[in-house]
Amino acid sequence: MKVVVVGGSAAGMAAAAKAKRMKPELDITIFEKSRYVSYAPCGIPYYFQGMVKSLDDLTYYPVEYFRKKRRLDVQIRHEVIDIDPSEKSVLAISLDTGREVKVYYDKLVLTTGGRPLIPPIKGVELDGIHTLRTLEDAEKLYKETLGASVIGIVGAGYIGLEMAEAFRALGKRVIMIEMLDQVLPSFDPEPSEIVKKELIDKGVELHLSEKVVAFEGGERIKEIVTEKDSYKVDLVLLATGVRPNTAFAEKIGLEIGVTGGVKVDRSMRTSDPDVYAAGDLVETIHLVTNKPVYNPLAPAANKMGRVVGENIAGGRAEFPGVVGTSIMKVFDLEVGKTGLSLREALENGFDAVAVDITHPNKSHYYPGYGKMNIRLVADKDSHRVLGAEIIGPSGVLARIDTMAAAVTAGFTTEQLKMLDLAYAPPFAPVWDGLIVAATVIEKKY
Amino acid sequence: MKVVVVGGSAAGMAAAAKAKRMKPELDITIFEKSRYVSYAPCGIPYYFQGMVKSLDDLTYYPVEYFRKKRRLDVQIRHEVIDIDPSEKSVLAISLDTGREVKVYYDKLVLTTGGRPLIPPIKGVELDGIHTLRTLEDAEKLYKETLGASVIGIVGAGYIGLEMAEAFRALGKRVIMIEMLDQVLPSFDPEPSEIVKKELIDKGVELHLSEKVVAFEGGERIKEIVTEKDSYKVDLVLLATGVRPNTAFAEKIGLEIGVTGGVKVDRSMRTSDPDVYAAGDLVETIHLVTNKPVYNPLAPAANKMGRVVGENIAGGRAEFPGVVGTSIMKVFDLEVGKTGLSLREALENGFDAVAVDITHPNKSHYYPGYGKMNIRLVADKDSHRVLGAEIIGPSGVLARIDTMAAAVTAGFTTEQLKMLDLAYAPPFAPVWDGLIVAATVIEKKY
Repeated sequence: MKVVVVGGSAAGMAAAAKAKRMKPELDITIFEKSRYVSYAPCGIPYYFQGMVKSLDDLTYYPVEYFRKKRRLDVQIRHEVIDIDPSEKSVLAISLDTGREVKVYYDKLVLTTGGRPLIPPIKGVELDGIHTLRTLEDAEKLYKETLGASVIGIVGAGYIGLEMAEAFRALGKRVIMIEMLDQVLPSFDPEPSEIVKKELIDKGVELHLSEKVVAFEGGERIKEIVTEKDSYKVDLVLLATGVRPNTAFAEKIGLEIGVTGGVKVDRSMRTSDPDVYAAGDLVETIHLVTNKPVYNPLAPAANKMGRVVGENIAGGRAEFPGVVGTSIMKVFDLEVGKTGLSLREALENGFDAVAVDITHPNKSHYYPGYGKMNIRLVADKDSHRVLGAEIIGPSGVLARIDTMAAAVTAGFTTEQLKMLDLAYAPPFAPVWDGLIVAATVIEKKY
Repeated sequence: MKVVVVGGSAAGMAAAAKAKRMKPELDITIFEKSRYVSYAPCGIPYYFQGMVKSLDDLTYYPVEYFRKKRRLDVQIRHEVIDIDPSEKSVLAISLDTGREVKVYYDKLVLTTGGRPLIPPIKGVELDGIHTLRTLEDAEKLYKETLGASVIGIVGAGYIGLEMAEAFRALGKRVIMIEMLDQVLPSFDPEPSEIVKKELIDKGVELHLSEKVVAFEGGERIKEIVTEKDSYKVDLVLLATGVRPNTAFAEKIGLEIGVTGGVKVDRSMRTSDPDVYAAGDLVETIHLVTNKPVYNPLAPAANKMGRVVGENIAGGRAEFPGVVGTSIMKVFDLEVGKTGLSLREALENGFDAVAVDITHPNKSHYYPGYGKMNIRLVADKDSHRVLGAEIIGPSGVLARIDTMAAAVTAGFTTEQLKMLDLAYAPPFAPVWDGLIVAATVIEKKY
């Protein structure tokens, strides 16, 4: 059986490696446009900060590993230019030699990932305006960053914030412009305010509720013009979101979901039974709302890829969906979210309530002590925990992951309140913040 | 209504404070033998290490807080000498004035806690042999520690290990003697071995499988004699376990459970409907085995106390039980456990299997990077996760608390494998160790 994988991302390589391991007789070819496979773009901010010496270190495994150890036919620097589902073929072109290759598949795996959303703003095509998605994007941006003094970031989501920290670490002035009235749009306003304060404290020049109307300059960006003001910059990072890269999916007639991602079932099969899709290309199910959600994050992409691999090899794996868990570092804050914000819960029809508490992360005398802000969201009727947003100097991963499990399990706040969490002075207070939040929220019922 | 609380521990004070807050007209008297209430003995090792300046800092709230803010009648340095359930009275004596006080109760709360198990070894009553349970024990031990050079610790459980670290931090030679063939008896041998190695690396002179047969000296301990050898010491800490302090419970005829702790229902009521009990005095239910368990740990004691308080005030709270979650620091290791070890699972009739993996706690380039050892235990038949033992340089709290939720929820390993855990390079690898362990364990089914 011949398998062709389009896109050597984490999802694509996870699928290929898993399938081959389970069924060594499979003949698997992967086409990847860049020179990297199985890459981890989440590490890019730390490359800028100097913690990662080479971008090659941001791949989980090098190309040679997949070729030699996994016996996969990995074709890097090969761009797929056509897919023909009627004859089940993929046409790719070598970016080095210009040579075309056509391969026929029994099963096709589409992992073309996401693409940066580029807003239709006048001057957006000027030199010096970057998006940041791939390791090659990072290479280009890094080179220009070194010579820049003032960097404009458009968008205050995850990538914008992590890169703001990286640019500040490099001693740059950072001007961040966000159309909405808060940073981190997926968070509720109150937790978001804490992150905003941290950005300002750390010298980020933050401009909320400002819409960019033009990028000015000759060939090269010189100025960002908003509805309210204009800002001289040497460089711009557009971090205005990610969209599924559905060009091929649409071309071959795959069903696209309401979020814009390719629709797949729990086995990660698309509307074409011979085509699987995974990663940032697809939409999945949010396990709290049971509605489709676009969740372009690496852990889900990797899991989806593995599910594809198992199923291609004859297994019966399923990817159930996500609760939207995420964590990030923003300067000296750890910022995590899982499940629904209050706003999202209300939008999805829950009669939801939220509480905010400020609570120690560990015993006051222990190094790393600090207070965490915990917002807990629950359903007033069923008392089911719907989500949490947690921000603090340390200890956030523990609480967010625990909440991810609690939200997935469908715990009520009564169950959360009695959860047997670990305690010792170096790690947690005897009443963990999650338990306190689950207690305090009862006043809102 | 008159409420009398015997024992001003965390559980007793939580009960009193909660009841009074819910029903201010309650008349509540607390008798506590020591001069501390609401104390946190878990902080004692950090007092020895110099992180906590005063033992008073190891109480959650001072006595005056309970008296003035909570309007509770707190009688410290008052030892209860008799309880008469027929006339519903408690007789206490002031340790300062010798005056006796008799009070009558409508509801009695017994929170007499645990007591250190003192093995019947020849010479165990010698001067310089200490147990460590209360803050007053800590005071006495600390004073003698300063003048000691060589300290013997008998018992390699939690308290023994935490104090070994504390004594080493003070520059003492530490000779640790354990009857069993491993440290941390509640852990499986393989994880325990990792902790053993750390103790030895940090200079603890560890002697396993050695039974102490005598303590020698004139008035004061000079030598620990085992079946195999003898060790000159200046001081001994007996850390051989904790038992419920059931003297009064037995005297007033309360039903005692199979573990030796007072039997209570989910509302924390004893066999006498007017007597509640909570904390290290009682046994509770293990939520994995559904059997009684003695779990003398602070988070459960606090929760139980609050349940008592709610119920005394007319509420209908329930304490469901525990999954036996714990965490401790042992020198440079974080050591956590939740649910059942493989040995415990097999003893309890599960057809259990375990896997051990070694997995990064975060991205390799990020400060604090290190490998965690994760042992996951699951039921071969149902695939239900039964427990985990996790040891590593950092990041253990996150995984143990997540597993506590997973074990409580009754997740299968298939569910754990698909859990939407947080990922970013400063916090976790893209495949979290828990997910890897849940994948690898399938080979054992």
